[in-house]
Amino acid sequence: MSKYFGNIEPLVFAPDSDGLGFRHYDADELVLGKPMKDHLRFAVAYWHSFGWEGGDPFGGRTFDRPWFPADTMALAEARADAAFDFFRILGAPYFCFHDHDVRPEGASLTESRDRLNRIADVFQQKMEAGGPRLLWGTANLFSNRRYMSGAATNPDPDVFAYAAATVRDCLDVTQRLGGENYVLWGGREGYETLLNTDLGKELDQMGRFLSMVVDYKHRIGFKGTILIEPKPQEPTKHQYDYDVATVYGFLRRYGLENEVKVNIEQGHAILAGHSFEHEIALANALGIFGSIDMNRNDQQSGWDTDQFPNNVPEVALAYYEILKGGGFTTGGTNFDSKLRRQSLDPEDLVAAHAGAMDVCARGLKAAAKMLEEGRLEAARSARYAGWQSEAAQAMLAPGARLEEIADAAVARGLDPQPVSGRQEQLENLVNRYV
Amino acid sequence: MSKYFGNIEPLVFAPDSDGLGFRHYDADELVLGKPMKDHLRFAVAYWHSFGWEGGDPFGGRTFDRPWFPADTMALAEARADAAFDFFRILGAPYFCFHDHDVRPEGASLTESRDRLNRIADVFQQKMEAGGPRLLWGTANLFSNRRYMSGAATNPDPDVFAYAAATVRDCLDVTQRLGGENYVLWGGREGYETLLNTDLGKELDQMGRFLSMVVDYKHRIGFKGTILIEPKPQEPTKHQYDYDVATVYGFLRRYGLENEVKVNIEQGHAILAGHSFEHEIALANALGIFGSIDMNRNDQQSGWDTDQFPNNVPEVALAYYEILKGGGFTTGGTNFDSKLRRQSLDPEDLVAAHAGAMDVCARGLKAAAKMLEEGRLEAARSARYAGWQSEAAQAMLAPGARLEEIADAAVARGLDPQPVSGRQEQLENLVNRYV
Amino acid sequence: MSKYFGNIEPLVFAPDSDGLGFRHYDADELVLGKPMKDHLRFAVAYWHSFGWEGGDPFGGRTFDRPWFPADTMALAEARADAAFDFFRILGAPYFCFHDHDVRPEGASLTESRDRLNRIADVFQQKMEAGGPRLLWGTANLFSNRRYMSGAATNPDPDVFAYAAATVRDCLDVTQRLGGENYVLWGGREGYETLLNTDLGKELDQMGRFLSMVVDYKHRIGFKGTILIEPKPQEPTKHQYDYDVATVYGFLRRYGLENEVKVNIEQGHAILAGHSFEHEIALANALGIFGSIDMNRNDQQSGWDTDQFPNNVPEVALAYYEILKGGGFTTGGTNFDSKLRRQSLDPEDLVAAHAGAMDVCARGLKAAAKMLEEGRLEAARSARYAGWQSEAAQAMLAPGARLEEIADAAVARGLDPQPVSGRQEQLENLVNRYV
Amino acid sequence: MSKYFGNIEPLVFAPDSDGLGFRHYDADELVLGKPMKDHLRFAVAYWHSFGWEGGDPFGGRTFDRPWFPADTMALAEARADAAFDFFRILGAPYFCFHDHDVRPEGASLTESRDRLNRIADVFQQKMEAGGPRLLWGTANLFSNRRYMSGAATNPDPDVFAYAAATVRDCLDVTQRLGGENYVLWGGREGYETLLNTDLGKELDQMGRFLSMVVDYKHRIGFKGTILIEPKPQEPTKHQYDYDVATVYGFLRRYGLENEVKVNIEQGHAILAGHSFEHEIALANALGIFGSIDMNRNDQQSGWDTDQFPNNVPEVALAYYEILKGGGFTTGGTNFDSKLRRQSLDPEDLVAAHAGAMDVCARGLKAAAKMLEEGRLEAARSARYAGWQSEAAQAMLAPGARLEEIADAAVARGLDPQPVSGRQEQLENLVNRYV
Repeated sequence: MSKYFGNIEPLVFAPDSDGLGFRHYDADELVLGKPMKDHLRFAVAYWHSFGWEGGDPFGGRTFDRPWFPADTMALAEARADAAFDFFRILGAPYFCFHDHDVRPEGASLTESRDRLNRIADVFQQKMEAGGPRLLWGTANLFSNRRYMSGAATNPDPDVFAYAAATVRDCLDVTQRLGGENYVLWGGREGYETLLNTDLGKELDQMGRFLSMVVDYKHRIGFKGTILIEPKPQEPTKHQYDYDVATVYGFLRRYGLENEVKVNIEQGHAILAGHSFEHEIALANALGIFGSIDMNRNDQQSGWDTDQFPNNVPEVALAYYEILKGGGFTTGGTNFDSKLRRQSLDPEDLVAAHAGAMDVCARGLKAAAKMLEEGRLEAARSARYAGWQSEAAQAMLAPGARLEEIADAAVARGLDPQPVSGRQEQLENLVNRYV
Repeated sequence: MSKYFGNIEPLVFAPDSDGLGFRHYDADELVLGKPMKDHLRFAVAYWHSFGWEGGDPFGGRTFDRPWFPADTMALAEARADAAFDFFRILGAPYFCFHDHDVRPEGASLTESRDRLNRIADVFQQKMEAGGPRLLWGTANLFSNRRYMSGAATNPDPDVFAYAAATVRDCLDVTQRLGGENYVLWGGREGYETLLNTDLGKELDQMGRFLSMVVDYKHRIGFKGTILIEPKPQEPTKHQYDYDVATVYGFLRRYGLENEVKVNIEQGHAILAGHSFEHEIALANALGIFGSIDMNRNDQQSGWDTDQFPNNVPEVALAYYEILKGGGFTTGGTNFDSKLRRQSLDPEDLVAAHAGAMDVCARGLKAAAKMLEEGRLEAARSARYAGWQSEAAQAMLAPGARLEEIADAAVARGLDPQPVSGRQEQLENLVNRYV
Repeated sequence: MSKYFGNIEPLVFAPDSDGLGFRHYDADELVLGKPMKDHLRFAVAYWHSFGWEGGDPFGGRTFDRPWFPADTMALAEARADAAFDFFRILGAPYFCFHDHDVRPEGASLTESRDRLNRIADVFQQKMEAGGPRLLWGTANLFSNRRYMSGAATNPDPDVFAYAAATVRDCLDVTQRLGGENYVLWGGREGYETLLNTDLGKELDQMGRFLSMVVDYKHRIGFKGTILIEPKPQEPTKHQYDYDVATVYGFLRRYGLENEVKVNIEQGHAILAGHSFEHEIALANALGIFGSIDMNRNDQQSGWDTDQFPNNVPEVALAYYEILKGGGFTTGGTNFDSKLRRQSLDPEDLVAAHAGAMDVCARGLKAAAKMLEEGRLEAARSARYAGWQSEAAQAMLAPGARLEEIADAAVARGLDPQPVSGRQEQLENLVNRYV
Repeated sequence: MSKYFGNIEPLVFAPDSDGLGFRHYDADELVLGKPMKDHLRFAVAYWHSFGWEGGDPFGGRTFDRPWFPADTMALAEARADAAFDFFRILGAPYFCFHDHDVRPEGASLTESRDRLNRIADVFQQKMEAGGPRLLWGTANLFSNRRYMSGAATNPDPDVFAYAAATVRDCLDVTQRLGGENYVLWGGREGYETLLNTDLGKELDQMGRFLSMVVDYKHRIGFKGTILIEPKPQEPTKHQYDYDVATVYGFLRRYGLENEVKVNIEQGHAILAGHSFEHEIALANALGIFGSIDMNRNDQQSGWDTDQFPNNVPEVALAYYEILKGGGFTTGGTNFDSKLRRQSLDPEDLVAAHAGAMDVCARGLKAAAKMLEEGRLEAARSARYAGWQSEAAQAMLAPGARLEEIADAAVARGLDPQPVSGRQEQLENLVNRYV
C-alpha cells in the first residue's frame, strides 16, 4: 500500500480489464523483433507530475499534494518518495528532471549544488533499489527572475556565468546518475522586443555557451547525447530555437551539427506551425534526431497545453517516422504532459500516464506493421522511380551543369505529364493500421 | 494622355494636394545623405498589377483590362504597353517579372524561350527610352500543372530538367535586361503530405539545383545577387524555404551561404509566425539579407493576402532594421502587393502604389531619424554594456571552459540582479518618430 | 463498364478485400436499431467532385476530365452522366449541388433558369431511374463578379434583386427534385474592409432576405429545412455567418430561430477557432442543429482545405454529439471534400469517398457504442448531480433572488471544495471505442 | 515626493519635453466640442498595475514592490496608498478593480466582505480627497481553486451560490463607491473538454445568474451599466462569452439585450479572430456597446499578452467607431494592460501609461478629424446610395416577397455591374489623419 497513491497496485497488462492497467502496452511484447519497452523507452517528467501545482495565468494552485510547496529539503524528499512510488506503480523505465524540480534552490550556487547532490543521493539509492533509469537531466534556466532576460543570451554576463555554473552542476549530476542524454531547452533564450535586443550578439553568446557544454561533456567523459529542444515562443515572444530547421542552421553556424541533436516535442511542433511527424522526419533527414517529448497541444489553443497524447492515428505517424529513421538510440518517449488543472486526484495521474502509454503502444504497433508490410514505402519508392535512371542521377551529380541539362531538355522536347500523388489512397492505407 | 490610364498625369511630390500625387515621397530628398529613391529602390510587380485578374478561390476574374486574357503575343504586347505607361506615371525606378507574367507560354521550351526573348526586346526598347530598370527577374515554376508536385523537388526528373531549362532562360533574360538580382521562390518546393514524400531526397535535389544556378550565374558573368524568397506554406502545406532561419540552414548545408541571399516578404514573415522586422534583423545577423517584398498580410487571415502596406509604424521598424544593416545594395523595395479584387479601376492601381510609396517614405524618414538621433541604439548598447569588460569577453573567447566559468561564478558568490528591459519606454520613444 | 470510371465496379462491403470496396461501411448494418445508411445519410458534393478543376491561388487546372470546362449544355450533360455514374458506383444515397455546378450560366436570368430546369430534367430522369435523392440544393451567390461585394448584403440593390431571383429559381428546382433541405452559404456576405462597409445596414439586408426566403418556402409548400452554413472568413476577411453562436444571434434578431437551422462544416468550425463537436453540441443546445458538411481542415493551414475526413477518433466525437441530439432528421453527411489537386485519377475520386465513408462508419459505430454503454453520460450526470437537489433547483427558478442566495451562502458558511474533472480518464474511456 | 514613486512629479501636458509628461494628451483640449478627458475617460486597472507580480507560466515574480505579497490587510493598505499615489501622478480620472486585487480573501464569505468594505472605506476617503472615480468594479470569480470548473456554470451548485454572494458584495461596493458600471468577465465560464460538460445546462445557469444580477441591480437602485466582457478562450479552452456576436445571441436568448452591454478588449478581439474596430462596430450595430479595455495583443502570440497600446493608426480606427456610435456614455477607456515582466521599475509603470494615453489621444484626435471632415462617411454613403430609391427600399420593407422581386428582376433584364470598392484609396485617406 502506497503512502501517497493509496491502494493503487502496480499496473499490469490486462487487455480486457476495466481497471487502471494497460490494455495495449505489453512491455515485453516483441515488435519488429524488439520488446515494446525498448522501442518506446517511456520516461516520466518530474516537473509536471510532481512539481506543477495546477496553476495557470488566471489562477493558482489546484492540486493538493502533501509535499507542496516543497520549499524545504524534507518536502523535497517526500516528493522524491512519491515520485519513485509512482514510477514503481507505472513501471516506467525512465524519468527526467530539472534541478529546479527536485530541490529548493539554495541561497548560493554552492548551496544549490549541495542540495542537488543530496537529492541525487536519494535518487541513486532508489534507482539502485530497482527504480527507473534517467533518460535525461536538465537545468531550469528560466523560472528564477535572474533569467528573465535569458540565460546564455542575457545582456548581463554574470547571468551567463551563473547559467554556466548551473549547467555544469546539472551535467555532473546527470552523468553521476547514468543519464543517457542531457537536454537544453532555452525557454528564455529569445526576446520580448527587438527594440532592446542585439540578435546577432545573443546568437553568438548562445553558440559559445553550447560549444562549451559540448567540450565539457567530452572532458568529463559523459557518453550521453546533448539535446536541444526547439520551441518557437512562450514564454518569450520569439525563442531562438524556433524549430528543427532553425536549430539545424544554428548548429551548422557554430560547427556543432555532429555533436548535438534535438529533443522534439509534439506541442512545440504545433506551435511552430508544423506537424509532429514533420519535425521528426526533418530531423532524420538532417541527421539530428535524438528524442521526443510526447504530449499533445490543443489545436484551438495558441499556447503550450502539454496534454497527454490521446489520438492514436497521429501518434502512429510519429512513430512511423521514428522507426523509419532506425528508432531511438539514447533517446526515448518522455511524457512532457501534465494533468489538466481540474484533474485533482492521484488516480488521475496514474490513469493519464497509463492511457498515454497505451496510445503510444497502439501507435507503435500500427507503425511497425505499416513498415513491415512495406506498402507505404513501396508507393513512395515508385513515385521517385524515375530518378533511378543513369541520366537522372547524372543531373544530381556534382559536375552537372544547368545549361547542359537545359539543352538536353530542349533537345528532347520535354513535356512532362503529372502523375497522381494518390494522397487519399495513402491516407486510406494508413487507416487500415490505426 | 494615356491609352489605358486616361488622363492620369505622372505623379509628382505635392504634399498639400488632394490628388493622386505623393504627399511624403520626394524622390530626391536626401535622407542620411542619400536621395530617398536610392534608399527605397521601389519596384512594381508585373504579375499582381498586370497579370492577376482579380480571382480568388471562390470567384473568378473581376478586373476588366483590355489585355486579358493575354494569351496571345499581341495581347502580351498590349500589356507591356500598359505596364510601361504605368511605370512612367508612377515614376518607379524598377520593376520585377516572371516569364509567365509577360508572355503566354509556348508549346515547347523553345517556343517559350523565343516568346520570352521577343518580349524582352520590347522591354529593352522601352527601358532604353527612359523606362525603369529591372530589380529582378524570376521564373514561374508553380502555375503550370507540370509543377504540381514541385519543380526542382519533383519526383519526376523530367520536371527537374524542364525547370532547369526555364531558369536558364530566365536568368539569361534577366542578365540581358541588366537585372540586379535573380529570385527563386519555391512555391511548389514542399509537400502536401509526408506520406508520399521523400523529404531528404527532395532537399538534396533542391540543393543541387540551386548550386547549379549559382555556378551558371558565375559562368555567364551575371553580377546580380541570387535571392531565395522564404515562405512557410501556401500553395503547399509545407514549403521547404519556410523562413529566414530555415533558408540559412539550407544554404549552410549545401555550402551556399556566401552565394545566396534572401528576399523577405512581409506577408510571408507573418504567415511563418514572425514579424517582418524579425526576419530582416535575423537575415542581417546571419549575413544573408538581400531585398524585400513589401506588402501586408491581414493579421486575421491565414493566407497570403498581399495587401499594399499602410501602417507607418510597422513599416518604420522594418526600414530601421534595413538601415541598421547598411541599407540595400542590389536589393530594393518590391511591391509584391495586389489590389483587393473589388478595386476595379485603373485609378485604384495608381492610388494603391502611390499610397504605399508614401507609407514607405514616412517609414524610411522615421527610421533614419531614429538612427541619426541614436537614442534607441544608445539604450541597446547600455543594456549589453557589461559584456565590454575583459572578464566578460574572455568567457566568449574560443578557449573558455565551462568549468572555469562555473568555478569563478561560485567563487565570486554571484547573485545577479535583473535590470529593467524598459520595453514600454522604448516603444514610447519609437512613437516620437512615427 | 463505365464510360468515365472504366472498369470500377460498384462498391460493396468487403471488410477483408484489398480493393476499393468498403471495409467498415455496411449500409444495412443496424446501429442503435437503424441501418447505418439512415444514420449517416451520405451525400456527394457535385461542385468539388465534378466542378472543381484542381486550381489553387498559385496554379490552374490539374484535372483532366472530358467535360471540362463545361461551358456548354452538352458538356454539362456529360458531366451529369459522369456524376450519376459515380453515384451509382459509390452507392451514395444523396447528392447536393449549386446551380453554378450543374449548368453554365446563361446570358440572362431567364436563360440561366431555363438551363437549370433542363439539367433538372436530366437529374429527375436519372433519379427516377434509381439515382440518389437530393439532400440539398443551393445557389452560388459568390463566384460571379456581380457578387464581389456580396449578394443580399450588396451595396447595390440590383444585386440583391438578382440574388433573390436566383434563390427563388434554385429553391423551386430543389423542391421539384424532392430536396430535403435548402442551404444558404453566404460566401460574400461579409466585408473586406470596414472602411467602406455599413455593417448594420448589411445585417438588416441579410435579415430581410432570409425572412423572404422563409416566407417563400412556406408559400410554395417546400417541406425541407432552410439551413445556414456558418463560416468565419474566406473568401471575405470577415463573413457575417461567423459560427454557430453568431448565426443563432442573427436568427434571434430577425425572429427566425424556429425557421432556420445550421449546416455545420468541420473545416469552417476549425477556421472559427472551434472543434467540430463544439459547433454540433452548441447547435443542439440552441435547438438549431440541421446537417453537416463533413471534411477536414489541415490544422497547419489557415485556409479552407476541404480534405476528406480521415481521423476516426475525431469523427467519432462528432457523431457522438449528433446521436446525443437525436441524429439527423432532414440533414445528413455531405462530403464537402475535395481531392488534393495532385490526385488526378478517377480512381482517386472513388477511393477518397470510399475511405471517408469508412471513416464515418467507424466513427458512427464507436459513437453508438459509447452512447449505448452509457459510461460517458453516467460520468457527466454524476458531475452535475448536486443540481438535482430542491435547493439547487430553486436557485435557477425564475423567482430566485441574488441576495437571498447570497444570504443563504453566508449563513451556511459555504466553502465549496473542487472535485476532479477526470478529463484524462474520460479521454481514456473514449479511446476504448475508437 | 512620493513614497513609492520617488520624485516623479505629476504628469503635465508638455509636448516638447523630453520627460515623462504627455506629448499629446491635453486633458482639457476640446475635441468635437468636448474636453479630451471626457471623450477618453481613462481608467487604470488595479490588478495589472498593483496586483500582478510579473509571473508567467514559466517563471515567478519579477517585480519588487514593497506591498507584495499583499496577503495582509496592512499590505493591502500599503498597496492602496501606492495606487492612489500613482493615480495622482498620472492624473487618470478613473480606476477599476476586482475584490481580489484590493484585499486578501478572508476565511469566509463574511470575512471577505468585511475586508472588502474596509478597503472600500480607504478608497472612499482617498476618492473624496481628490482621487479618481470608479469606472467599474468587478468580482474575481476565476483565481481561487473553488472556481476551477466555473462560477455560475459550475457543476456544483454551492459554487454558484458562493459566486452569487461574491457578486452581490462587489456590486454593493461598486454602488457605494459611485461606480459607473459593473463588469462580469467569465474567465472560467467555459470548458476544458466537452466530454465532462453539459453545454446547454451551463448556458442556462449562466443566463439565470446574469438575470438575477440585473434584477438585483434594479432593486438596489444601481444606475450603472452591467457589462459582459467577451473573450474566446484562456484560461479555458472555450469560453462561453466568445465574442460580441456570441454575447449578443446569449443576451437575446435570456431576454437581456436591453439590460446588458459589452466591455470590449482589444486583445480578446484579436484572440477571437477579429479586429478591435470590428467588435466595436458590431456592438454599435447591435446596440450593446458599453466600454473598452484598451490594450494590445501581440499578433504573433496565441495568448492574451495585455500590452500597452502603441500603434496609433489602429487605435484611431477603434475610436473612429466609438465616435461614430456617439462616444462613451457610462463606459470609458480602461487600460487592461500590464507591463512586460522585464519592465521592473516604477518609472516603467508611469511611462507605460503615459505613452498609452498619448497614443489614445493621437488616435482620438485623428478619429475626430476624420469624422469632422466627413470624407470617409461620404464615400460610404455614396456606395450605398442606390438603396435610397423607393423601389430599393420597398424590397426591404416587411411586406416584400421573394417572387415579386424575382419577377421584377427578370422583367428588368437585370445585369448588375460591379463598382470599385476603392479600399486602397480609403486606406490612403485614413493615412492622411494618422
